[in-house]
Amino acid sequence: MNDISVTPAKEAAVAAVMASPAYQTALATLAAQHDRTVADIVTLTEIAAPPFAEATRASAYLEMLRAHGLAEVEQDDAGNVMGLRRGTGGGPLVVVAAHLDTVFPAGTDVSVRREGTKLFAPGVGDDSRSLAVLLAYIRALDAAAIRTHSDILFVGDVGEEGLGDLRGMRYLFGTGRYKDRIAAFITVDSPDMDAVAVGGIGSKRYRVTFHGPGGHSFGAFGLVNPMVAMAQTVLELSRTTVPADPKTTYCASVVGGGTSVNSIPNDVWLEVDLRSKVPFQLDRLEKRFLRIVDDAVQAENHARSVREGPVTAEPVLIGNRPAGATDPASEVVRYATDAIAAHGFAPHLSFSSTDANIAMSLGIPAVKIGSGGTGGRGHSLEEWIDVAAEPSVRGMAAGLTAVLAIAGMEPA
Amino acid sequence: MNDISVTPAKEAAVAAVMASPAYQTALATLAAQHDRTVADIVTLTEIAAPPFAEATRASAYLEMLRAHGLAEVEQDDAGNVMGLRRGTGGGPLVVVAAHLDTVFPAGTDVSVRREGTKLFAPGVGDDSRSLAVLLAYIRALDAAAIRTHSDILFVGDVGEEGLGDLRGMRYLFGTGRYKDRIAAFITVDSPDMDAVAVGGIGSKRYRVTFHGPGGHSFGAFGLVNPMVAMAQTVLELSRTTVPADPKTTYCASVVGGGTSVNSIPNDVWLEVDLRSKVPFQLDRLEKRFLRIVDDAVQAENHARSVREGPVTAEPVLIGNRPAGATDPASEVVRYATDAIAAHGFAPHLSFSSTDANIAMSLGIPAVKIGSGGTGGRGHSLEEWIDVAAEPSVRGMAAGLTAVLAIAGMEPA
Repeated sequence: MNDISVTPAKEAAVAAVMASPAYQTALATLAAQHDRTVADIVTLTEIAAPPFAEATRASAYLEMLRAHGLAEVEQDDAGNVMGLRRGTGGGPLVVVAAHLDTVFPAGTDVSVRREGTKLFAPGVGDDSRSLAVLLAYIRALDAAAIRTHSDILFVGDVGEEGLGDLRGMRYLFGTGRYKDRIAAFITVDSPDMDAVAVGGIGSKRYRVTFHGPGGHSFGAFGLVNPMVAMAQTVLELSRTTVPADPKTTYCASVVGGGTSVNSIPNDVWLEVDLRSKVPFQLDRLEKRFLRIVDDAVQAENHARSVREGPVTAEPVLIGNRPAGATDPASEVVRYATDAIAAHGFAPHLSFSSTDANIAMSLGIPAVKIGSGGTGGRGHSLEEWIDVAAEPSVRGMAAGLTAVLAIAGMEPA
Repeated sequence: MNDISVTPAKEAAVAAVMASPAYQTALATLAAQHDRTVADIVTLTEIAAPPFAEATRASAYLEMLRAHGLAEVEQDDAGNVMGLRRGTGGGPLVVVAAHLDTVFPAGTDVSVRREGTKLFAPGVGDDSRSLAVLLAYIRALDAAAIRTHSDILFVGDVGEEGLGDLRGMRYLFGTGRYKDRIAAFITVDSPDMDAVAVGGIGSKRYRVTFHGPGGHSFGAFGLVNPMVAMAQTVLELSRTTVPADPKTTYCASVVGGGTSVNSIPNDVWLEVDLRSKVPFQLDRLEKRFLRIVDDAVQAENHARSVREGPVTAEPVLIGNRPAGATDPASEVVRYATDAIAAHGFAPHLSFSSTDANIAMSLGIPAVKIGSGGTGGRGHSLEEWIDVAAEPSVRGMAAGLTAVLAIAGMEPA
């Protein structure tokens, strides 16, 4: 791993939170209501939320936020749902978010299978669990009658995954009515408590459509085939060496096209994801990818006949997430890592591509923290989480402590 | 070309047909009603008939057959529509068929664009034109009051293209109520009058599903990707040398799969079409293809990490058309080539993969003839036909003469 180990700063703010009787009440509430939190995870996971089709889950979550007594509960024009827990006015606005969408397309079976303390379902950890954890935070704060200096805006947002291209965050920070008031941003994303993301991975996503003349599979045999140019692109990309540090990656992710089994296809398309922690490597990889596409088209046009027309390729940039970073010395990062360490975890600073990218790219202090417990196989159909009570509650307590330190806890 | 040139046999039957006053009346009817035939082509082409979704066009064609006064008009359980033009009982049953289905998926724009005498639309020549030509034959026979020895069963059939795998013909010859009575089979398929298909190309179609563990595009970078095994399969197949004679071909035709742009896919599938005029070459190509799939999976499992599981491939045979041939010396072939030559065309015997494959594989004399006029770019979105009157009518007259010679024309 190339993430940065951190030595917790032993911040007074975190110690003060954890020393308060109110914190003990909040912690006891997280533990006492853990079964309800697990039930909420199952409920939310089983409401499918494919990219660009988060509306049903958003409506359900809006009602949950309302039932939790937040103020100004609303849905914005991007589809984000949110509500305010008012502070005493002593601090600027803090946003605590989890994302509504999953990577899984419509039709994916999202029913939850339980084995002991393990829950299996697409999207269960990324990020359905976090949505339920935000509700657990609110109940714990209310049970302990905790007041904060800052207003806290709890958000269930759209468009975090894939082609959503962070549109929920772009709207919140660029257009929505809170856009100029957000002073700190915390996204709760996936279970792992140790990785505190302070850097946003930059990514570029392409959809390349390979076009050709098409024709009868037998009668027109020998004509150029856009499928071959697509295949050559995938294969040459898969042979590309990228640095492990700064971590840089590529993925040939989604593919489609063709007319029928007995036709040379007219069109084949391919979606590719390119990422790097640093802009220079991302630029270098992007240039190489576009050259691979061009070379693959050239090769096919010289391998088979172009008498009915050549193969062409049209790469379209469908996603462009800015890289960004939060200063490790900022309060947001210090409070988060200290709170996490104080709960027995081993925090390290990491880079990832999350809702925090937008805040980071705007220079607003932002971190990604975990929702607690454990989990694995995110973005695969075998995704799972473990909801065993002790590590789950301890993780939630760590996250809530970080939020309280950042938002400023009023003395009892 | 490796098709066989033929010297017309100057059959008495063809000469007798063409010398009759009734033939002159039929020919004049084809010419006089050509505009109606063109209108029927447009009407039928604009009723979408994707594979396995021919029902709407089938219903329309059933009504057209009924309106043309055929007897026992019906739809069988496979979806074929048909009607009988009764003969005098002096000959066995002759089937004249055209296929209802096109290769184009639901949602393809099938509206016809006309430029002069050219009509552009997916499926216009393959095989919508032939459906209209069968109706023109019937009107011409009726206008000339022509009687035949044989009953003629006119059929608009399903499942000729792609994954339809000739299911309409399999039903007609294997299950339907005429199955043991068919003595000769003529399919009218695509415009070209010169190529008379007397051999059925054998084909095998595979759908290969490549499965892998999937995962996050960035977090799980380095895991095996089934997309790469698919790509390697396409690429290695595209490098395979196949004989030009006996003509043997392959086509990587349709592809799909993937979860989202930021996920390593769990599943990617590929459909491939393999064909040859001779079983030996088809077997050889099939074995090579399956080896390529296996090698591609092996290579991917040694190029990236299998710690979350390997890539596997599951090839499923989704189409298997038997090769077959009609003896060039048979009456069906002699009459067809003689009728075509007598109308100013230059017939040659060819191999193709059509509805006639099933009859040929059962030893029933069968030919594929053209619908008349010219056309091109079949199976592509740029498909076109030319309906200029003279060559179109001459082509239809040739086809009708072949049918009359085969079915036995009664003297006036």
